[in-house]
Amino acid sequence: MSIPQKSRQYILPAGRKNGYKKLTITEVEVPKLKATEVLVKVHAASLQYRDLMIAYEHYDPCLAGREIVPGSDMAGEVIAVGQDVTDWKAGDRVCANFSPAHLHGDPTPATMAAALGAFEPGVLTEYRAFPAAGLVRIPKHFSYQQASTLPCAALTAFNALNGRANPIKAGDTVLILGTGGVSIFGLQFAVASGATVIATSSSDEKLKIADKLGAKHLINYRNAPDWEEEVLKITKDVGVDHVVEVGGRGTIYKSIKSVRIGGGVYVIGILSKGDFPQDIFRLILLRAAEVRGILIGSVAQFRDMVKLIEANPEKTTPVIDKVFKFEDGVAAFAHLESQKHVGKVVIQVSKD
Amino acid sequence: MSIPQKSRQYILPAGRKNGYKKLTITEVEVPKLKATEVLVKVHAASLQYRDLMIAYEHYDPCLAGREIVPGSDMAGEVIAVGQDVTDWKAGDRVCANFSPAHLHGDPTPATMAAALGAFEPGVLTEYRAFPAAGLVRIPKHFSYQQASTLPCAALTAFNALNGRANPIKAGDTVLILGTGGVSIFGLQFAVASGATVIATSSSDEKLKIADKLGAKHLINYRNAPDWEEEVLKITKDVGVDHVVEVGGRGTIYKSIKSVRIGGGVYVIGILSKGDFPQDIFRLILLRAAEVRGILIGSVAQFRDMVKLIEANPEKTTPVIDKVFKFEDGVAAFAHLESQKHVGKVVIQVSKD
Amino acid sequence: MSIPQKSRQYILPAGRKNGYKKLTITEVEVPKLKATEVLVKVHAASLQYRDLMIAYEHYDPCLAGREIVPGSDMAGEVIAVGQDVTDWKAGDRVCANFSPAHLHGDPTPATMAAALGAFEPGVLTEYRAFPAAGLVRIPKHFSYQQASTLPCAALTAFNALNGRANPIKAGDTVLILGTGGVSIFGLQFAVASGATVIATSSSDEKLKIADKLGAKHLINYRNAPDWEEEVLKITKDVGVDHVVEVGGRGTIYKSIKSVRIGGGVYVIGILSKGDFPQDIFRLILLRAAEVRGILIGSVAQFRDMVKLIEANPEKTTPVIDKVFKFEDGVAAFAHLESQKHVGKVVIQVSKD
Amino acid sequence: MSIPQKSRQYILPAGRKNGYKKLTITEVEVPKLKATEVLVKVHAASLQYRDLMIAYEHYDPCLAGREIVPGSDMAGEVIAVGQDVTDWKAGDRVCANFSPAHLHGDPTPATMAAALGAFEPGVLTEYRAFPAAGLVRIPKHFSYQQASTLPCAALTAFNALNGRANPIKAGDTVLILGTGGVSIFGLQFAVASGATVIATSSSDEKLKIADKLGAKHLINYRNAPDWEEEVLKITKDVGVDHVVEVGGRGTIYKSIKSVRIGGGVYVIGILSKGDFPQDIFRLILLRAAEVRGILIGSVAQFRDMVKLIEANPEKTTPVIDKVFKFEDGVAAFAHLESQKHVGKVVIQVSKD
Repeated sequence: MSIPQKSRQYILPAGRKNGYKKLTITEVEVPKLKATEVLVKVHAASLQYRDLMIAYEHYDPCLAGREIVPGSDMAGEVIAVGQDVTDWKAGDRVCANFSPAHLHGDPTPATMAAALGAFEPGVLTEYRAFPAAGLVRIPKHFSYQQASTLPCAALTAFNALNGRANPIKAGDTVLILGTGGVSIFGLQFAVASGATVIATSSSDEKLKIADKLGAKHLINYRNAPDWEEEVLKITKDVGVDHVVEVGGRGTIYKSIKSVRIGGGVYVIGILSKGDFPQDIFRLILLRAAEVRGILIGSVAQFRDMVKLIEANPEKTTPVIDKVFKFEDGVAAFAHLESQKHVGKVVIQVSKD
Repeated sequence: MSIPQKSRQYILPAGRKNGYKKLTITEVEVPKLKATEVLVKVHAASLQYRDLMIAYEHYDPCLAGREIVPGSDMAGEVIAVGQDVTDWKAGDRVCANFSPAHLHGDPTPATMAAALGAFEPGVLTEYRAFPAAGLVRIPKHFSYQQASTLPCAALTAFNALNGRANPIKAGDTVLILGTGGVSIFGLQFAVASGATVIATSSSDEKLKIADKLGAKHLINYRNAPDWEEEVLKITKDVGVDHVVEVGGRGTIYKSIKSVRIGGGVYVIGILSKGDFPQDIFRLILLRAAEVRGILIGSVAQFRDMVKLIEANPEKTTPVIDKVFKFEDGVAAFAHLESQKHVGKVVIQVSKD
Repeated sequence: MSIPQKSRQYILPAGRKNGYKKLTITEVEVPKLKATEVLVKVHAASLQYRDLMIAYEHYDPCLAGREIVPGSDMAGEVIAVGQDVTDWKAGDRVCANFSPAHLHGDPTPATMAAALGAFEPGVLTEYRAFPAAGLVRIPKHFSYQQASTLPCAALTAFNALNGRANPIKAGDTVLILGTGGVSIFGLQFAVASGATVIATSSSDEKLKIADKLGAKHLINYRNAPDWEEEVLKITKDVGVDHVVEVGGRGTIYKSIKSVRIGGGVYVIGILSKGDFPQDIFRLILLRAAEVRGILIGSVAQFRDMVKLIEANPEKTTPVIDKVFKFEDGVAAFAHLESQKHVGKVVIQVSKD
Repeated sequence: MSIPQKSRQYILPAGRKNGYKKLTITEVEVPKLKATEVLVKVHAASLQYRDLMIAYEHYDPCLAGREIVPGSDMAGEVIAVGQDVTDWKAGDRVCANFSPAHLHGDPTPATMAAALGAFEPGVLTEYRAFPAAGLVRIPKHFSYQQASTLPCAALTAFNALNGRANPIKAGDTVLILGTGGVSIFGLQFAVASGATVIATSSSDEKLKIADKLGAKHLINYRNAPDWEEEVLKITKDVGVDHVVEVGGRGTIYKSIKSVRIGGGVYVIGILSKGDFPQDIFRLILLRAAEVRGILIGSVAQFRDMVKLIEANPEKTTPVIDKVFKFEDGVAAFAHLESQKHVGKVVIQVSKD
């Protein structure tokens, strides 16, 4: 395939105020590859809540007033490689890691600053150069659309469940809050790992999906506002081994009440409203809980996640809510904002 | 249930020479319970290769010339508890751990000496007292016969796959040698944990069983004496993450060749014939392999294994080859010796 | 040594209101040993802040209105053993674990309820029976007074630094808040492990002691109320690997700011005043911090701690502030309450 | 500093037969830097037994008949950086990792092929380009000569003692065989980590050095050919927690006998003569030993090792036996071959 000269890409203009509504398609030069870079044709991208926050300038104050190429998650095809690249060749099917600089181990300020779609240009573009070391081969049986859902949501869930202290093992019990992107992947990975899942939602319809994906216990927290009591009932007052905590201020106290002594609560989201009591660290102490913040994950973890997916294809099919055409970026953001979706919102960037 | 006064039990007499053929049923007093002991009615027992070795006096030279109550693996029902026992009550369904003194962590000479059916009396008896701390609740959905297969073979497999260095995780690849008791459980636990299994056997019939239990790749080593080459082919020259090594001298060299750099080889059996080259530690070095000896496991691990089994009931049903009546102990040992079985040989000790 | 018939012991009477001031010595029968118990002559006991809280009925509401034998930490000499005890013999020098039922792994509600000096009678008594499994041999070179300081404070510090996720290793940097019992042991164990310690205090005098014990960096937080900024300066904006967090509400926010991305904050105390912002879990997320509650520790960990102490005798001598006679229990509690001490307050229970 | 045009470097010519005696200094062009490379002025290099083996064509058959630039271990100064390098600048003091491609985690065939001084040109050269990611900052207080001893021997020792299964902790007991490069660093790192060291040697003089470096127990195996018995005596029949196994065929059996049940034996060297019995895997099984092959280590581990060294400067000063001038390379190899040294043989490549 010959290397194109132009790439159509979205920008969030600098003077936006009303979030994503001024998303605009522009045309830019395809960059010259550095020696260790790879040029990728982006086939599909998926959206995150983070993309909305960035659009509304609620994410990082330092980003306010900047023009941004949005989007962190994509899957695509290698078009060309820099002169020192030996790992990739044209035709390879790849995802970029959320932070292409985060290769292994803990993140650092430098790897965090390299995350896509914020201080660094994002992936809502037809062609983009990435550092070769920041790419990962996608699961063989995945379409580009499916693979585009992995970098942020799936890797966060994988990292949460496979930590150093309490890595998930078959027979563990996992509490999954809600049915957002991270939660759905957490549910699937837990089931694929032989664990028992308790899923919560405010909607019976969404709980049906959780049930279909293998959750063994379902709690509609509309009907059970003290859902932590339900969790303790199900686990015979022991509590669960792991909580995928996507709620934040409004749920964290109940999550810590739900965990067994010595279990893990993985802090992923911080969005829900409400305050928790100041004695929460007393609660952490009394549960001997391990509360761990999760910052997406590394290239090394991404590779392990691909192994998990390829070994468990029936249990790990990404749930895609809706696919939008490249031109319909504003509609895609609006759909994400509506919170009616279960599963991921995907944009088809280039034709396959 | 009233406490019985007599217990029928098997002994291997001191003057045996021809192995298990002099197995005799005797009648003994049911022991008085110590304050921390539990009296268990043994419903079912399963046999191990170790039981044959002990019968033939090939196991531990210090055992030669001793009268032995054989059998290490059983499941039964609590009949009575000592005065300081608070964890158990009559009617509870339990297994004894292989060494009831091995509660957690690494074994010690003392816990090894406490193993059942060797220096300590075994379980081929109708009623036996056990230390309360050495018992484990059996999986809820298991029959006594099924549960009797767990203590030695299953826990060895569980311990091998869930070590400190490289605990199994979904997506790993596991090489299982043969279809003996440990190997079958290893296969099942690996599949339940979301791993990919490569199974070997000299018999296509046995491989069919491995296939049914979820093995993804099958190697008949009659047709492929260089089976390690097949393993490397299947794994694209990377090698597997884990080898459940039950062969010993005749297979260990090939097993180490089969493992990926940094992977684990778990030494369980030492029975096969043949010599390995003296450069085997050079091979271990070049593979950066972790070769780990497995000595059954602890009560704490047994409890984790029960969690795994209860969470994955379809994938972990014990494979029972044949059940013998209590009176047919010699026939049961003979069947085990014939090596025609796939799965466990069980003796029904008491009527359920 | 003949078994005594009477034991003098302290009680906090049921109708106390003013804390420890009604502490009274009574005389009770020495209990008959159960088969698995050991009778210990208590030589020395050390006091904890917990003992004060229990005296003031601030510890656990369910304890209010109960008569209590106070004290959790002691060292003494084995006088007699129950008929099934094989591990101990008269003359052995031992500590009881804080919860003699917590043998290994995570605590449980049952092991927590078995902690000494609360729902179970404590150790401010001349003779006490303990379950054999709950005792630990004391360091060979320690006096009874020294050993009496270990069960609660030292084991908490050891458990914090030797967790599953981020066990301390030589070269790590550890932040120690204050110079209370846990903090001093944390400092000593960190230094003995080859780590670099940053110590804080409000008193230059106390910092001198920290300096003498091997702390490399000292921060007087009177002069530096934003001590987390000092910590970041010392670590070149990276943050420390571990924080021994004994403060609670008033310090936890700064502690999390002090830790490196991916580092550990061990929640031990919850006493200091002040509120933290509700965005604290956002901070945990952004630091990918591991915040872990520490509930003392197990017998297995106690044994490992004794190994550490015996291998590093010069660096791990307990700091004892003052030793009181048995009759001066009220004065000992008062001295503890005054907070003028650095190091442990010890009561000599029996003559050595 | 201006970039030089020529670099004097050693080669082992293709037609050598008699090992290192044909070592020759040639002059080559300083290479043009790739975008992600760094040009380093090599100040000092240290020799390994591996360098001798390569010279004698005993290392890897595929290397036979090839011209080789020898040497894997060096320390030097950054002279210039490629256009995409942001981590390094002129003047930085660095070591190259043994395999500059081994960044983290387990090695791979590709990282092993990238090791210096074999298939890739080595470091006995005045100026050499390295990939930026393969360099590590050296300890601040080290001279270049001291730092040149770290890459192979020290990192191997560090990797052995800090594995996944049984990382060293204060209070552990470590058996160190001999006083070669890896063993001396193993001794120092163990002592710095608060462990107790048992050292062996055939020479009382060398044992004196081990004593000075902090070994607590010394065994001269000339006088005690059954040195494993001495080890068991010292450890009261328990065995040690870790063995740094540098001997190979002649010592491995005794090493496994020396380890505690559940302890670790780290296979590093394979040189000593002698055969071990074929039942060695039975021994591994009965000790539940973890036998692990060590292939040097990664850049991430190297960084952790530098932290350890900087935090424990008094205990980790490299032992340098002798320093040779660049022109005296043959003499340096001869001195290494003589095996009279304790500690490292260093070549001063450039003037500081």
